[in-house]
This record gives sequence, C-alpha cells and structure tokens, in this order.
Amino acid sequence: MKNQTITVDNVYIKSTFSSVGTKESEGPLSEFFDAKYSDDLLGQDSWEKAESTLIKNTVSGALTAAKMTSNDVDLLFAGDLLNQCTASSLGLKAFDIPFFGLYGACSTFVESMMLASLAISGGFANTAIAATSSHFCSSQKQYRFPLEYGEVRTPTSQWTVTGSGCAVLTREKTKLKINKITVGKIVDLGITDANNMGAAMAPSAADTIYAHLGGAKKDHDDYDCIITGDLATVGTELLIELMAQKNIDIRRKHLDCGSLIFDRSRQNVDAGGSGCGCIASVFSGFFAKKLLNKEITKVLLIGTGALMSPSSVLLGEPIAGISHAIEIEAVN
Amino acid sequence: MKNQTITVDNVYIKSTFSSVGTKESEGPLSEFFDAKYSDDLLGQDSWEKAESTLIKNTVSGALTAAKMTSNDVDLLFAGDLLNQCTASSLGLKAFDIPFFGLYGACSTFVESMMLASLAISGGFANTAIAATSSHFCSSQKQYRFPLEYGEVRTPTSQWTVTGSGCAVLTREKTKLKINKITVGKIVDLGITDANNMGAAMAPSAADTIYAHLGGAKKDHDDYDCIITGDLATVGTELLIELMAQKNIDIRRKHLDCGSLIFDRSRQNVDAGGSGCGCIASVFSGFFAKKLLNKEITKVLLIGTGALMSPSSVLLGEPIAGISHAIEIEAVN
Repeated sequence: MKNQTITVDNVYIKSTFSSVGTKESEGPLSEFFDAKYSDDLLGQDSWEKAESTLIKNTVSGALTAAKMTSNDVDLLFAGDLLNQCTASSLGLKAFDIPFFGLYGACSTFVESMMLASLAISGGFANTAIAATSSHFCSSQKQYRFPLEYGEVRTPTSQWTVTGSGCAVLTREKTKLKINKITVGKIVDLGITDANNMGAAMAPSAADTIYAHLGGAKKDHDDYDCIITGDLATVGTELLIELMAQKNIDIRRKHLDCGSLIFDRSRQNVDAGGSGCGCIASVFSGFFAKKLLNKEITKVLLIGTGALMSPSSVLLGEPIAGISHAIEIEAVN
Repeated sequence: MKNQTITVDNVYIKSTFSSVGTKESEGPLSEFFDAKYSDDLLGQDSWEKAESTLIKNTVSGALTAAKMTSNDVDLLFAGDLLNQCTASSLGLKAFDIPFFGLYGACSTFVESMMLASLAISGGFANTAIAATSSHFCSSQKQYRFPLEYGEVRTPTSQWTVTGSGCAVLTREKTKLKINKITVGKIVDLGITDANNMGAAMAPSAADTIYAHLGGAKKDHDDYDCIITGDLATVGTELLIELMAQKNIDIRRKHLDCGSLIFDRSRQNVDAGGSGCGCIASVFSGFFAKKLLNKEITKVLLIGTGALMSPSSVLLGEPIAGISHAIEIEAVN
C-alpha cells in the first residue's frame, strides 16, 4: 500500500472562527458558533453575495481572534461549492493575501488545512489561512432547484449547511498542533444518485481512514474522535460497515459533522447536513473549542467530498468521492 | 511590499506532455505538440467526457515520457474550467494517486506546478504531477452559448484552447530546474465585460510580475522570456502599458501563449487563445522543448486567470484576475 500520510512539523492552529445561518443557529451546536446570522442574505441582494460575505466575515473573525491583520498572513487557501468558486474569489479579494484557490467539493476545508500545513512545515510560510463556505440557498439554486420551486426532498438527501469556517495556522506554538495529514485519492464505486451523497462519499472516507491508520501506523484508539465531514446518517452507516469489513470498529469513536449540526427529529434535514461549510463551521466552532478545553485531546478530522456537478449528473457519470484527513492534537 | 516569492530547492521537471485539438493542430505551434486529435470529441459522446479523456491521455503521456507509472507518483495537482472541475475528477480518478483539486481559472496550470514544487521542495513528495485542461466546446456550452447557437463574437473575445498539458516534477535532477515561485493575489480593477478577459487579467499579471521582480530582486533582463498564459492581444497591450507605468519595459522579453497558439490572421480567434489548457499545452509542448534544447535558458512563466462564473457575470460582479509565476531554468 502506498503511503499517503505526511508528517508535518511546527504547524499550529492559532485561531478558528465559525459563522452560520438561521437553521444552524437553531440546531444542537448553536452555542458553539462564533457568529450567527438571523438573515441568510446577510444584507446582500443575492445568495452568491451572501455566501461571499459569509466567508469574508469568517476570515475577518479568525484574524481578529488571532490578533492579526491580513498583512501578517503569507498565504490564503480557500474554496467553496459555487461554480468557479465564486464565494471565495468575491469574498476574499479584499484581504490582498497571496491566494491558492482550491476545489475538493466538501473535502475542501481539510484540503485547505493540509496545504496550509505543508506550506508552514516546509518553511515557506509563517502564517497561512484555511477557509471554506457553503450556503443552502446558493447551493439549491445551483445544484438542484431554486427555492421557489418547493423541491420535494428524498430521505437520503442532505441539507447544505449555511456556514463558513476558518483556521489561522502558524509556525508559532499554540495549544493546538497539527501532526499528520493523509491525502485522499478519488474513489469511485459507481454511485449515480445525486441525492445520496453520503453513499458516494463513504467509500473514500473508509479508504482514507484506512490509509491513515496504516500509514501513520496508528490504532484508531489513539484518537478520541474520528470526525467525518458530512456523511450524515446514510453515509455514516456505510462507513461503519466498510470499516468493519477491514476489521476496524470505529463506532465508539466516530462522529459526523453533518449529523451533529442539525436535530433530524425536528429540523427536516432528511439524512443530515452537508456542504463545504459543514465541517468548516463545526470544526472551527465546536471541536476546536473542545480541544482547547482538553475535553478531547487528539482527533482525526476527515473532509469528505462528492465530486459531482450538475452536468456530470445529467451525463449519468458516477459520483466519485474524495476524503482528506488531518490529525490535530491538544498540546501544552 | 510583502514578499510573495518563495525559493524552492531540488525541484526539477522530469517530463512534460501536451495534447491539443484540431484548430490548435492547424496553428503555428502544431509541430511542437505531442498529441494532436483530429476529432475534438476524442471518440466520446459529450464535450465534458472529451475533455476528461484529453487530460487523462495527457497525464498518461507525461508518465510514459518520464518512464514512470502512476505508482511512482506521490501527489497529483490538477484542475480545469468546468463546473466543479469535472474534467479533472472524471479523467484522473483512474490513476489512483493522492489528489489535490485546484481552481485558479486559467492560472491553474502554474498554480498546480507551484504547489507540486512546494511539496517536493518541502520534502513531502519525491514526484508530483501538475496538469490542467480546457476544451473550446465544453467551455462554450458552459460559459457562453451552445455551439449550435452560432454565437457572434466580439473582437476582444478569446478562443478557448482545446488542449491539455502536464508536467511531472521530481526531486531527481534533470535538465529543467524550478527556482522560484511567486504566489499571486486577487486583483480587481472593476472589469465587468466577460468578453474581455484580457483586460480582466492584465492588472494581476502586472502585479505578479512586479512582485516577482521585486521579491526575487531580479532585473527582468535575467529572463530570456517572460511568458504569460492567455492575455491575447488586448491583455498584452494592457500589460505592456501597466509595466511601463512601473518603468519596466518588458516588450523585448514578453511572449503570450494565447497569442502564439493561433494565427489570428487566418484562424478567426479574435483576440487570441485562452483557457487552462492554453499555457499548459504551450509550455509543455513548446517552451519545455526550447528550454531542453537550450534555445532559451531561463523563463518566467505566468499563469493568468479571470475569476468569473456565468452567475457572477449575471450578477454584474466585476471579474477579478489572479496570476501566479514560476521561474524555470535549463541547467546542465
């Protein structure tokens, strides 16, 4: 098996910041988010501008929390789900920071943290930012139907999180250290149902977790939590089953941001949350605080992405998945 | 001025490969391309699948030229212009290489070379691939009008290149060395005409070249060529003017891939070529050979991207530009 895992040195998380919309503010993690918007348009006149404002405000929030300005940042890694990453380009241009645009579907937040980590560990940057966003309304408009059509959802469908998360990574020591990253491969098991992204992503999540545990030669018991991005209920069941086939029982350790962010019993989100902003806001808002408080000390964070576009779905092409993993530890 | 330039060590180009479609095969650089397709569908039943086949074959060609298989490659950096980078995800999944998806519009080829260089220089990979593609027909369908509509083009519009380029980068010494990279910022001067991408990209190209010359403390006379991606005639004029305002006359050194790839006098391409595949195929096919033959010894290669989507244009948002630069030298 090829080693997909890279050990990084001197990479720390200086600050994180999370922003969410109304539905997420009414969910179980409400108290942990740093900014909660009661107007999903954020005062803008389009969903795209709303999302670009969301990621912009989130990066500003993370910089403020780090007591930094954009002048202190060497590199910015970001992306989103909109066509041609519109939210990131529109929202982040004002920061005037050398910019790498990324696209890894909902794996993009961990992808951006991985590349920022490599840049710092390699000695190419002292400070680098990782940020992503998603917005329910801009995603519905682009991937499915305009809101006004009143789409009837299937039970396997997921609710795109209106949210954004940002992490400021530094060479300077802090209480949160990044140890290892595992770069995912594109995994395609032939899923073609665009309303079942959990099933499309689960095989890649299993592949990357297995590679990480093999590559890092770690037992999964080393981790307090193995956190996936947005597998939601359907994808989570499949992940548990796929890992069991490899004789690894992750049930006691596994948590999924898409399952945590909403209360399925009362929030009508079907299988759960999804989107670039799901793992970004839940990690930045919830897990980062749990790590800082030492309620947990070591986690494996896995961004899970479904590589599809409205065109690829119309063409009947299968939806491949990609998952990237990063190991984060609370240190002294 | 913030330093945007990073020096990299031990990064070499082991092989390059270029593939183009019919119109490019009839252009002035025809003899330099490694694969020329007489069927722009490449035997597929959609333009998207044609483009994914194009990038797949190009990466295969570069691996063969490097006498490698995908098992020898640690990391793959790639992207394209289609929504959600469909060509890269569909085309490259078969290689089973840990994958970073990128989006930097037409700057993506240099973006992918930069990140591959950082991964190797940082000691995180021995071999990394950089690849991008574009296709005239898939781009027309997505960004403008289906071919069947018979769009009337404006004189400032550019012709998306049907082409792909790939570079295999290694730690192992070869005759082509990568010395420095300059990471671009998003530059927005308020251009809103989607049929004038040259004007949208020229300010960012000027910004990045100036940063590189300042950051690398180099006179531009150090370079045999300063090569931009796809400014075409309109953007080139603006770049020359913007550089002149900074008291740098790059006229003797400047070449533009979008201007070189077509013969404007007979190929009806208006201002010239564009697309992720333009600089990718022209660098991989033409300039890499010129460097290997020592006809030129040091170049600055600048990927120029226009950060727009059909939605952002409809919203009336300005088209920002981003340009990334990489210094490549022929060594012993």
